[in-house]
Amino acid sequence: MSEAIEGREALALLERTRDAVDPRIRAAVESLPGSLRHVAMYHFGWQNADGTFAAGPGGKAIRPALVLATTRALGGDPRAAVQAAAAVELAHNFTLLHDDVIDEDSTRRHRPTAWTVFGTADAIIAGDAMLALALRLLAEDLHPAAAAASERLANCVIELCAGQQADCAFEERAPHEVSLDECVEMATAKTGALLGCACALGALYAGAGPEETDAMDAFGREAGLAFQLIDDLIGIWGDPGRTGKPAGADLAAYKKSLPVVAALTSGTPAGAELAELYRGPMTGGAIGLAADAVERAGGKDWAQLQASDRMARAVHELSRAVPDLASAGELLALAEFVTRRTR
Amino acid sequence: MSEAIEGREALALLERTRDAVDPRIRAAVESLPGSLRHVAMYHFGWQNADGTFAAGPGGKAIRPALVLATTRALGGDPRAAVQAAAAVELAHNFTLLHDDVIDEDSTRRHRPTAWTVFGTADAIIAGDAMLALALRLLAEDLHPAAAAASERLANCVIELCAGQQADCAFEERAPHEVSLDECVEMATAKTGALLGCACALGALYAGAGPEETDAMDAFGREAGLAFQLIDDLIGIWGDPGRTGKPAGADLAAYKKSLPVVAALTSGTPAGAELAELYRGPMTGGAIGLAADAVERAGGKDWAQLQASDRMARAVHELSRAVPDLASAGELLALAEFVTRRTR
Repeated sequence: MSEAIEGREALALLERTRDAVDPRIRAAVESLPGSLRHVAMYHFGWQNADGTFAAGPGGKAIRPALVLATTRALGGDPRAAVQAAAAVELAHNFTLLHDDVIDEDSTRRHRPTAWTVFGTADAIIAGDAMLALALRLLAEDLHPAAAAASERLANCVIELCAGQQADCAFEERAPHEVSLDECVEMATAKTGALLGCACALGALYAGAGPEETDAMDAFGREAGLAFQLIDDLIGIWGDPGRTGKPAGADLAAYKKSLPVVAALTSGTPAGAELAELYRGPMTGGAIGLAADAVERAGGKDWAQLQASDRMARAVHELSRAVPDLASAGELLALAEFVTRRTR
Repeated sequence: MSEAIEGREALALLERTRDAVDPRIRAAVESLPGSLRHVAMYHFGWQNADGTFAAGPGGKAIRPALVLATTRALGGDPRAAVQAAAAVELAHNFTLLHDDVIDEDSTRRHRPTAWTVFGTADAIIAGDAMLALALRLLAEDLHPAAAAASERLANCVIELCAGQQADCAFEERAPHEVSLDECVEMATAKTGALLGCACALGALYAGAGPEETDAMDAFGREAGLAFQLIDDLIGIWGDPGRTGKPAGADLAAYKKSLPVVAALTSGTPAGAELAELYRGPMTGGAIGLAADAVERAGGKDWAQLQASDRMARAVHELSRAVPDLASAGELLALAEFVTRRTR
């Protein structure tokens, strides 16, 4: 299948997923009490800051699409997994609300982040409510897989927290004190865990056993790490018009993202230049120099190769759970899509 | 039964509860990844800031005691409800971690709050993990009541969030803009909801039907509001040596606690004095004057009478679920205990 067709297939799948899952997410968010509802509606792009209607797209729905595509690939009925897909997307948005507070990020999906509009207290509280909502959707679900799904999602949230905590801790350490392995482990917890959980929930809702479920979790994790590597590349070299974030945003925030750490630990002169730049003020000119240093130190190539490698591992794990790769077309299209979104 | 005997009974019950529930909470907290575990262990008073052992008492365990006492009062086996009791206490501590960040409170249980020691990011993340841990304990629990308990706890957390959000919103409004009814509603959500949820979970784990469960929820809510009224009185007139908080702490923070709002909305000259004081800097001398104005405006008497009234309603609700009040001795002792802790 050509890349263009796979890309179109993924886009169509994401749209079908949003059609199926968004009403469930909306109903859940609209059940929140007054002010919490407003913050949550704003965050999803369904309301403006003044409470008026907005036709925002919400998220891309990659995680819910993974849930539903996994259920289908394993022979289950994806319609029975819509509630679980909505729960995963709510859990994802809980992390976005809190991460934006913690990282002091001011832009998300081309709009000011919730905390910049409503204050940190309201953003923290709305995030808390969204996590409770995610777990409530699973607790309410009468599907026989719901209890195992709850347990898995709760464990995943703890791993997400550990990843975010490690991320924060790395920012406070000197450049040479963070190893690339630690950084990969952090990214696996912070991003891979939830994509893995999405696939594992999809497997559970198809009635899969522990081995298939774990293989699907591993598929999601590996694809998730590939996704994070691409996201880190975008954080340095992305087009602000497409990402909604300023160019070099991660460098301006002194982020020790994967390509940066690869460069810093490269032992190259360019790596040393980057470390020196990270010790000084990261203003407009320094951001360009730093991006250049990451590239010359091999950080960009490393990240691109790692992303390909992780994708290969993802496909291997997928083949363990879905030996007939024809059934895995949607999952492959999704995995390819997320690792190609710079194009 | 005399007050002294009831007090002793409650203290003994709380101690027995901690003996039964603390190991379960500890095991859950110790299962957290590295740094999150450290923040959580510190918060519970089990570790010092440097990671060394501390013999802190953790919390008073009022909520887990309500779970277990309700299960027993309704003819169930409290040993089967220990996991649920631990979940409620973890959910309570999630709110403490986040509320301390949001309210910028610097002291909790006679020690610096987690965010003052580890920073706001770590305190937010540790709170998130604790909420996930609470819901994981219920998801893991094989008791037939666990799914209904999960749903109830998740809904309760959303109500707690709404209460905390209203509390924050009130702090930003002018004194005359917050009505006493709104304030009572906020306190019911912020404090009553979790005590009600604790009792409802205890009922579910005894196999109670919806009517008994709802009556026990109402018992806990009413007792919880009484508890909050007493807590508000302590926040103004409490002994710092016993509370671990500076005297007049709530006034220094311009808190619109229940006695304060009762005074501000009293239409008395003392109420107007208080409003004037709340417009100025709340330094040492002003705190004493404000406390005096709350008392002269009738805020202290109102809060004490309301607390008694709420206790009477609580007992009425309790009698609906447990007609034989001899079986309700522990619950009555706990309710009396929490409304008498100024003595």
